[in-house]
Amino acid sequence: MPRKLHLNAFLMSVGHHEASWRLPESDPYASWDVKHFQNLARIAERGKLDSVFFADSPVLQGDPGRRPAGKLEPTVLLTALAAVTEHIGLIATASTSYNEPYNLARRFASVDHVSGGRAGWNIVTTAGADAARNFGLDDVPAHRDRYERAAEFVEVTTKLWDSWTDDAVIADKDAGVHADAAKVRPINHRGRWFRVDGPLNVPRSPQGWPLLVQAGSSEDGRQFAARYAEAVFTAQQTLAEAQAFYADLKQRAAALGRDPDHIKILPGIVPVIAATEAEAQELDAELERLISPEYARRQLAERFQLDPADLPLDEPLPDNLPTEDEIEGAKSRFTLIVDLARRENLTVRQLIGRLGGGRGHRTFAGTPEQVADTIEDWFHSGAADGFNIMPAVLPSGLTAFVDQVVPILQDRELFRTDYEGTTLRDHYGLPRPVNSLELTTV
Amino acid sequence: MPRKLHLNAFLMSVGHHEASWRLPESDPYASWDVKHFQNLARIAERGKLDSVFFADSPVLQGDPGRRPAGKLEPTVLLTALAAVTEHIGLIATASTSYNEPYNLARRFASVDHVSGGRAGWNIVTTAGADAARNFGLDDVPAHRDRYERAAEFVEVTTKLWDSWTDDAVIADKDAGVHADAAKVRPINHRGRWFRVDGPLNVPRSPQGWPLLVQAGSSEDGRQFAARYAEAVFTAQQTLAEAQAFYADLKQRAAALGRDPDHIKILPGIVPVIAATEAEAQELDAELERLISPEYARRQLAERFQLDPADLPLDEPLPDNLPTEDEIEGAKSRFTLIVDLARRENLTVRQLIGRLGGGRGHRTFAGTPEQVADTIEDWFHSGAADGFNIMPAVLPSGLTAFVDQVVPILQDRELFRTDYEGTTLRDHYGLPRPVNSLELTTV
Repeated sequence: MPRKLHLNAFLMSVGHHEASWRLPESDPYASWDVKHFQNLARIAERGKLDSVFFADSPVLQGDPGRRPAGKLEPTVLLTALAAVTEHIGLIATASTSYNEPYNLARRFASVDHVSGGRAGWNIVTTAGADAARNFGLDDVPAHRDRYERAAEFVEVTTKLWDSWTDDAVIADKDAGVHADAAKVRPINHRGRWFRVDGPLNVPRSPQGWPLLVQAGSSEDGRQFAARYAEAVFTAQQTLAEAQAFYADLKQRAAALGRDPDHIKILPGIVPVIAATEAEAQELDAELERLISPEYARRQLAERFQLDPADLPLDEPLPDNLPTEDEIEGAKSRFTLIVDLARRENLTVRQLIGRLGGGRGHRTFAGTPEQVADTIEDWFHSGAADGFNIMPAVLPSGLTAFVDQVVPILQDRELFRTDYEGTTLRDHYGLPRPVNSLELTTV
Repeated sequence: MPRKLHLNAFLMSVGHHEASWRLPESDPYASWDVKHFQNLARIAERGKLDSVFFADSPVLQGDPGRRPAGKLEPTVLLTALAAVTEHIGLIATASTSYNEPYNLARRFASVDHVSGGRAGWNIVTTAGADAARNFGLDDVPAHRDRYERAAEFVEVTTKLWDSWTDDAVIADKDAGVHADAAKVRPINHRGRWFRVDGPLNVPRSPQGWPLLVQAGSSEDGRQFAARYAEAVFTAQQTLAEAQAFYADLKQRAAALGRDPDHIKILPGIVPVIAATEAEAQELDAELERLISPEYARRQLAERFQLDPADLPLDEPLPDNLPTEDEIEGAKSRFTLIVDLARRENLTVRQLIGRLGGGRGHRTFAGTPEQVADTIEDWFHSGAADGFNIMPAVLPSGLTAFVDQVVPILQDRELFRTDYEGTTLRDHYGLPRPVNSLELTTV
């Protein structure tokens, strides 16, 4: 069977472009309207996409004047989507720095139960002092500490998911024995960051473990992904960089004894689609015109740990930027943005325009045919196992992708014409984890 | 308008009776099947009930051999029910001892958004060392500390719910201003237990605040309820005790300057319903016969801080029980159980039978007419504003209540014949909280 693409729809408010809410077509209240997201999930399912995904952070991100800020809590949102869909995978971000593993393990297991095996967890450590200050801390913990905690968090979580064997419930009405108590075990975890007895208070879920996703590309992030991630969302601006990242991550996974095919790599792409290339570029330009640059400049200054006044809009980036080592979060994104500005010799205003669509993800304006071509090109060039589709405007950008690009990919036999399995793991071609408890009690 | 009853369906697995899963009619896997609960919520909505409710604790409670253990995470479950219902309120328990207020405030606000204003939070402090050991602690924190933390937790949570004014989002597309940043404010909470900057990352929800529910009846619990609760679920075995509790709680609320009508008191009742009284008692007896007493004896011994061998099945409770002061959780339930056993001179085996249906809640076996009579009696005797209906067997016990008891209550003009409002607060006749932020910024 020829290798097939994996396609995830990364959904955000009324589109990834920061000005999308200002278009006449956009409902600026849609961010908190579950019907909007239910509609999007149904469109994505119509396109036979592998999954939908929601990014998240436990803090109000950015100035609420700039664009729709605040989001429905993601496990609540995924559940609302599970209720109106049958096949599509449901992935959301949750933080290992600001949750307890017992609670989060249970929440994702519950979403996996209610969705019939369609849950996925994008594991993040959460950069930013503002999030820390919602949880009793003065500042964000150090990058290395966050990743160390994240690794232990995932260990605890997966042990909790394995704390019931798949056959623990026997439901013997005559004998009056509901579950075999020997198959429901405490985990008695004792580590640097967590002490958790268990067992979990929900049986093992349909997928065994919800799908583990990761999206950080720093050195710590890559090593974490190589060890734990089954799907990786990544921002890559050029084919060469994407190839290097892809090769590096597959090699790291193999070095850890994993099957490199069990870690699927999906670069982000912000497709701006129209019938002609000129129309697509006009839509892109219209969105760029609607950006209020002051908001974006403030955010850029914060990322660079500078004052906004140090970033004159019509000059190139200053020379005195910090190094990646001096940045305490979103390290690889910092480097990507600096590289992009320097490589294309952009002014601050131009850089803001380039980041407006995908915050560092690759924007591509073109016809459905051209979008399909670039997807196929990267897919066949060792740069991707699939793509994280990030429509600039929603729902119209998702509809355009599903109704115009997906059929081309299907005609080229690059993408499924129907779902072949029932779980998110089935869609991504990933195995169901063997229960570590069963292994140790055989 | 004559005073009307409030009816909440307290739902648990395939029924509150611990042996309900052993009946031929029961699906022993239903505890983790969202369709089971969606069916129950629809039945309750057909009966025009105010709400459904799910108790919870972040620990696997009891022996998994005894009966269906483990539950779907409640905010996930409520969301799944919101998707298939239109009117009924959706209440669940969450712990103030083992959550972060930022995360929990957001989760309940999100359920309120996705349900169009139907969310309620039963605030508990969580007794038991086993739960503590899932969160890095060796033992449960002291009762007084748990309640002090709970009070501060609720303060933080309500401030977060008020951190956006109701009119903060202006969505001015022309000016490029999405929300008025002056109406989205940090809370900068600094207390003994929490430091939380805010604002919340979701706008104020339809109800302003999800409904605040409480269920503890100890001295600390009553004072907490009097200050914060808008609905109280309580276990009362006799009319006299229920009247005393009702009067005490209303008086405490008034003493704190609250309108006593804004705290609704709902004793629990486990109705076992059949066409004749004899048939109802036979169903009750059949359930009692299906109890495996060893499990229940172990639990009783744990509650009394004794060894199971100290509780011979066919003897009365021993004299050397601890006092309520020596108990570190579920204090009032402890006293209720001891009083019940002593008052009726029950053996341990008989006590186990009496607790099998409702764990201390009042069980009442009778005809629909008799169930309606006792509800009316308590309602008109200053003992209740409504009832927490706890079917012994599900779905059949709920169906019987909705189809056979509710019509009688409606005929007697004691209960609504249709929903008159859209939110959970509407159903309970409770006001929407004024935003404290708006009050301070007028």
